[in-house]
Amino acid sequence: SINDARLLNRLRALGEIGRNPDGGPTRLAASETEKLGRDQFVAWLKEADLDVAVDRIGNIFGVWKPQGTESHDPLMLGSHIDTVINAGIYDGCYGVLAGLEVIATLREVGFQPSRPIVVGAFTNEEGVRYAPDMMGSLVYAGGLDVEEALATVGIDGSNLGEELAAIGYAGSHEPGFMKPHAYIELHIEQGPVLEREGFPVGAVDSLQGISWQQIIIDGDANHAGTTPITMRKDAGVAAARVITFLRERAKASNTPTVATVGCISFEPNAINVIPSKATFTIDLRDPDEDRLLAEEAALADYLRTVAQEEQVTITAERLARFQPVKFDGEIVRTIEEAALARGLKSKRMTSGAGHDAQMIARIAPAAMIFVPSVAGISHNPKEFTSETDLVAGANILLDVVCKLTAP
Amino acid sequence: SINDARLLNRLRALGEIGRNPDGGPTRLAASETEKLGRDQFVAWLKEADLDVAVDRIGNIFGVWKPQGTESHDPLMLGSHIDTVINAGIYDGCYGVLAGLEVIATLREVGFQPSRPIVVGAFTNEEGVRYAPDMMGSLVYAGGLDVEEALATVGIDGSNLGEELAAIGYAGSHEPGFMKPHAYIELHIEQGPVLEREGFPVGAVDSLQGISWQQIIIDGDANHAGTTPITMRKDAGVAAARVITFLRERAKASNTPTVATVGCISFEPNAINVIPSKATFTIDLRDPDEDRLLAEEAALADYLRTVAQEEQVTITAERLARFQPVKFDGEIVRTIEEAALARGLKSKRMTSGAGHDAQMIARIAPAAMIFVPSVAGISHNPKEFTSETDLVAGANILLDVVCKLTAP
Ligand SMILES: NC(=O)NCCC(=O)O
Ligand SMILES: NC(=O)NCCC(=O)O
Repeated sequence: SINDARLLNRLRALGEIGRNPDGGPTRLAASETEKLGRDQFVAWLKEADLDVAVDRIGNIFGVWKPQGTESHDPLMLGSHIDTVINAGIYDGCYGVLAGLEVIATLREVGFQPSRPIVVGAFTNEEGVRYAPDMMGSLVYAGGLDVEEALATVGIDGSNLGEELAAIGYAGSHEPGFMKPHAYIELHIEQGPVLEREGFPVGAVDSLQGISWQQIIIDGDANHAGTTPITMRKDAGVAAARVITFLRERAKASNTPTVATVGCISFEPNAINVIPSKATFTIDLRDPDEDRLLAEEAALADYLRTVAQEEQVTITAERLARFQPVKFDGEIVRTIEEAALARGLKSKRMTSGAGHDAQMIARIAPAAMIFVPSVAGISHNPKEFTSETDLVAGANILLDVVCKLTAP
Repeated sequence: SINDARLLNRLRALGEIGRNPDGGPTRLAASETEKLGRDQFVAWLKEADLDVAVDRIGNIFGVWKPQGTESHDPLMLGSHIDTVINAGIYDGCYGVLAGLEVIATLREVGFQPSRPIVVGAFTNEEGVRYAPDMMGSLVYAGGLDVEEALATVGIDGSNLGEELAAIGYAGSHEPGFMKPHAYIELHIEQGPVLEREGFPVGAVDSLQGISWQQIIIDGDANHAGTTPITMRKDAGVAAARVITFLRERAKASNTPTVATVGCISFEPNAINVIPSKATFTIDLRDPDEDRLLAEEAALADYLRTVAQEEQVTITAERLARFQPVKFDGEIVRTIEEAALARGLKSKRMTSGAGHDAQMIARIAPAAMIFVPSVAGISHNPKEFTSETDLVAGANILLDVVCKLTAP
């Protein structure tokens, strides 16, 4: 079994890096504070005597390549250490640190794997600063050109390539330089299902589709006191109508479709001026691709209706689009068996969140292990998973790694 | 008649101060750019040989006090030179510069008024940087304590008193130090009525009530992909519902009630995080006080409903509240007669916008003269009034001033 205290202490230590007063950590991808998290992770990789490799998109890998395994593709573990704004401490960091913990434990007990084992921390998984999310693993899997990714402009106007260079994580390895034999990601569920149904472990066999768009509405600024309602071209009202439409539609349906508007801004943003411009994001998800397509089409229809009714112009820019992913059935069964062997009931489930595993699944058999999130809270400083569940998840990862690298 | 070219050239020159590339001027109250506008105005006051007086809230007065008139209360003209964000060049500046033009013209032709004539530029009329709007004239009229006003914190976190001191316009006169015999304000209509009905002049006999609130909605941040719709406490959706409610209610009614949400922000403002907080402003207006009260009550009711249905907490902070104002009937008739004498049809009307006249009306008989706004556009760089209308309005002001100060 893994070293519980080491894993939990590191998780807490990483959670302090970039912490806001009275809040959780904010370590946006390739920022100055994320650099501090990266530096800490690299220090721990070196402490475990792993080779450290950084690729051009800033993905960090700790590589354990025992003699005699050099000619085999590595088993890859990993997740991410970037965070959303005012985040929890578990999302991403748990999978990365548990991967490192598993490797360190195996070395310490003299385990001889049949192939190298690698732990990766992928760049910009959250997608909050730069879209799309899961960018580092997407580039690694060949789904996005590295030059194009490095040219991405962030919500703060920054350039990802320049920011990576500035923090010293513009590596030289070509993304994809190690082809994984398989990929396993341990993560907190971030949703309420495991807790509600009483399972300590999830064996994740799929991941829902994700559609991200930025909507820009152009109306006309005018005086709040003198402009009759019928003469207004109010970009803000048009935006509000889209937000309420999405919510009403999701509520009325009997499907698991979710829609979220997380970002918004008005221009000129003055109390007595009708907004001339509204900019906002839409995050639309569904486990079923056909339904996701239908939801996107319904949204596009509604945007046309609102544009006409409110006399505004609406443009939609695609920020990310990923189809639902099916994980590898055999690895999922291995996870279920490992849980059972430790006396833990596991639930086969789909993932509501996007994960690096979803991208690496394009180039290798992949699956995920979930542990429960208390009250289903995530992307929030209140994010919490019990120590018991965290340790159990890491031990299941350990067992699965042993199974997949057994000599 | 006034000097057309001098008035129009000054209006254009002031409109260049603080102009955004490809836009209109932004001269928020007590800002560095507004200081430049103030300095220019003061230079023109001195050019006209007027005494310049600045009071503690930063109101600037140009005083013409011919010998023998010292014991009489002055006739006051005025408006404001602060602007909204990306404004037009006429709003406020027209009334200030026309007031100066009238005084300069009267001096040049050797007119001997029976009382002093003063032109004022009141601080923070727009209310965009500091609430409430019409602050300088409100303080001048004794409706708000000067210390309290100077302590106001702006949308940028600044302190009005400090900002006035920093730009050199924290004067020493007590607000209200000159009691106006009467007050007349010339302004662009900012709405579509005069143009639509074919009147070159408005004789403004009233001004609608204004209710400004800032609404803060507290929900709970959570993951956009994993949180079922029914478990969300989405502050953004709650805000959007309030915005659509206000619009639908205003559209469904047969009243002139207008409601505007001009400012909004979400926290943490991240694409895949359900907003934990939404902050936005509501500008609600009605010419009828009872109806305005009823609209405020309906809004408060709806906020309670939304708070319950969306499981969020909603607080409302009052930013400004002014009852409808009736102007002085005699001055209004004087305006109508002056228009008629120049062969111009005038329309008796109410004002949709707030104005300094509304505040000075608390301490002196007051009224306003409107000229048409093309297409009713204001608070927008496209704000426009024809030179003919601008000159005609200034000449009517000249005639009214002559009438009210005739020996
Ligand atoms: N796991 C996680 O929160 N990923 C971020 C990408 C997303 O699902 O929005
Ligand atoms: N005239 C004018 O635009 N005043 C600003 C105050 C308001 O009416 O919102």
